[in-house]
Amino acid sequence: MPKFLKIPERTKKPREYGLTCVLDKGLGMNEVQDILETAEPYIDIVKLGWGTGYITKDIKPKIGLYQKYGISVCMGGTLFEVAVIQNKVDEYCNWLKELGIGYVELSEGTIQLPVDRRLELIRALSKNFRVLSEVGSKDILVVMAPYKWVDSIKGDLDAGSWKVITEGRESGTVGVFRQSGEIRTGLIEEITKGVDYEDLIFEAPQKSQQAWFINEFGPNVNLGNIAASEVIPLETLRLGLRADTLPKFHLSPEQTKASQD
Amino acid sequence: MPKFLKIPERTKKPREYGLTCVLDKGLGMNEVQDILETAEPYIDIVKLGWGTGYITKDIKPKIGLYQKYGISVCMGGTLFEVAVIQNKVDEYCNWLKELGIGYVELSEGTIQLPVDRRLELIRALSKNFRVLSEVGSKDILVVMAPYKWVDSIKGDLDAGSWKVITEGRESGTVGVFRQSGEIRTGLIEEITKGVDYEDLIFEAPQKSQQAWFINEFGPNVNLGNIAASEVIPLETLRLGLRADTLPKFHLSPEQTKASQD
Amino acid sequence: MPKFLKIPERTKKPREYGLTCVLDKGLGMNEVQDILETAEPYIDIVKLGWGTGYITKDIKPKIGLYQKYGISVCMGGTLFEVAVIQNKVDEYCNWLKELGIGYVELSEGTIQLPVDRRLELIRALSKNFRVLSEVGSKDILVVMAPYKWVDSIKGDLDAGSWKVITEGRESGTVGVFRQSGEIRTGLIEEITKGVDYEDLIFEAPQKSQQAWFINEFGPNVNLGNIAASEVIPLETLRLGLRADTLPKFHLSPEQTKASQD
Repeated sequence: MPKFLKIPERTKKPREYGLTCVLDKGLGMNEVQDILETAEPYIDIVKLGWGTGYITKDIKPKIGLYQKYGISVCMGGTLFEVAVIQNKVDEYCNWLKELGIGYVELSEGTIQLPVDRRLELIRALSKNFRVLSEVGSKDILVVMAPYKWVDSIKGDLDAGSWKVITEGRESGTVGVFRQSGEIRTGLIEEITKGVDYEDLIFEAPQKSQQAWFINEFGPNVNLGNIAASEVIPLETLRLGLRADTLPKFHLSPEQTKASQD
Repeated sequence: MPKFLKIPERTKKPREYGLTCVLDKGLGMNEVQDILETAEPYIDIVKLGWGTGYITKDIKPKIGLYQKYGISVCMGGTLFEVAVIQNKVDEYCNWLKELGIGYVELSEGTIQLPVDRRLELIRALSKNFRVLSEVGSKDILVVMAPYKWVDSIKGDLDAGSWKVITEGRESGTVGVFRQSGEIRTGLIEEITKGVDYEDLIFEAPQKSQQAWFINEFGPNVNLGNIAASEVIPLETLRLGLRADTLPKFHLSPEQTKASQD
Repeated sequence: MPKFLKIPERTKKPREYGLTCVLDKGLGMNEVQDILETAEPYIDIVKLGWGTGYITKDIKPKIGLYQKYGISVCMGGTLFEVAVIQNKVDEYCNWLKELGIGYVELSEGTIQLPVDRRLELIRALSKNFRVLSEVGSKDILVVMAPYKWVDSIKGDLDAGSWKVITEGRESGTVGVFRQSGEIRTGLIEEITKGVDYEDLIFEAPQKSQQAWFINEFGPNVNLGNIAASEVIPLETLRLGLRADTLPKFHLSPEQTKASQD
């Protein structure tokens, strides 16, 4: 990267926060090489979305390639949910170990888990994996009260989750978003009053959503479900090198006002 | 693929039904290799959409690569329509033969063909090709009565079409869909009362459309106009490994009810 | 390309008009090779959108590869705006020279420049670069009167801009478009009454926008912000090989009427 511009400071890999989590829903090796060669410093975790990791041919070399570049891999939460339904959690964990995967995502986007069972699973899994637990339903009709979000997130972190993911899906139209993609800003405000934002990963696939979180929490907010082709665009948002966040990082209040007149 | 989960049974290649037809609108060799190496078992036919096959540089090696992996290739119907207008159907067929292509798509999405001419073309083409004929207009303003869909489809099959495609375009906003992408479910119901769904290929580019057809007709419904990047996501829908079809394949009625409460 | 169909005549590279300008927001070498091998004759300029060129790893080989295929490269206007704010225009120009880039985009999509400063910059830059200047705001709330568009475009051309770009962003929802993506057709009419359309590059990322410009101005209208995956689809629109422009180029008025009945 050239040095002639002044840009916001970013955390460095391996990051504890400032994470970009990519959604891989079946990328091939050529495309993976492309994103590694152009954007490796900006990617922390790759999620093989929902059940795609189970059916993609020859995923072992792909996982190895990500890891060689210092990127952690995990399977999607929906696959974990199917394993829970079929009483195959042990087999699921053994498979992850065979693949050399050190992260596991636990969710209840489609199934329902009693709270005790959820926390028991987090406690057990966190002995062998870094646990990413996800809060929020994939059902657009389910709206959860803010205090329940906070309680659920705190419970997960206490039980051993490394980070808690707020649900958004690939589309960014459920969970902390309205069906239109608009952010439930009051909900985010309530959640981050109760929980440190560095402990959260906000799924935010849409550009307007990413820009909002960066304008609200700064360049090092953790963001998830980022498409491979959007990693570099997202990094420009974090650094104020795109119109949507340029005023925050590069204009004085007077200049911003002038721009908006 | 690992074996520890119970998943729905899929037909195997070469498939008579359970087809996934991919829309290729100009993919290069690296991307083609990617989808073949990750998803070859899930792809049956690749359509070089509308006139893209006519102008893409060096398509012969690409067609050969698809065929090497047991995938059939055809050109888009719009290209055929231009050949019809310009009285170049023979030249068009010779070109397909030079390219080693054994499938032909016949449509009238933009031009109008008298029924007799359409059936005569299907009869002639089916001597040398597997004919995929498409029913439905690309014009959003054209709405055809259900009985006309059924008559047209039956006529095509009788004349020699291998499968009949229901129009949806790349966008999924015409033909059997409303402009919003919503499915004309009453129309589909009427059509499949008169025609075996295994004889139809439903163009269904949007995820919600794919999920609807799978929830309605099962894992082996024929679906078309699937983007290359959506082949693995679609296969997860067919197997209940994504939230949108998980309840159908992996939850009991009681569990489904609990999930929706 | 085969020869059996009659298609509209296109200008040839290096083109003075009939330009297709691609938006590259972080493509890797495999994907670049793909678009060059399939679509090189149809690409004139590649823009490394907004600040993506500043942060993409190892862009020098990518720029070299584009140029080897006769394609000019430029950085996005937003990066230039940040350089202006930070008083680093000289450093910016030196960096472009090191990279072997001969085009520069100047815009005020986010910042505000006094007219005199803008024209002075165009005059200075045009001594060493081909200048692409962009007119229009990236702010959806800013609506500029048609005569101001015309004045600004004429001023830029007089000061030395090679072409003037009309703002549309990656999304096609600002500038000459409404937030819905609909074209401000009255505005385009006013602009092209005052300025030759060959001197303009219309940013038109959406297919319906591309089709409108082609149906209005013919196959050799200059279009920008075209996604890499849309280059071949766009070329089919220019040649009437897709439904949206087929009637204009391949149907007689009587046939068009029949198609629309």
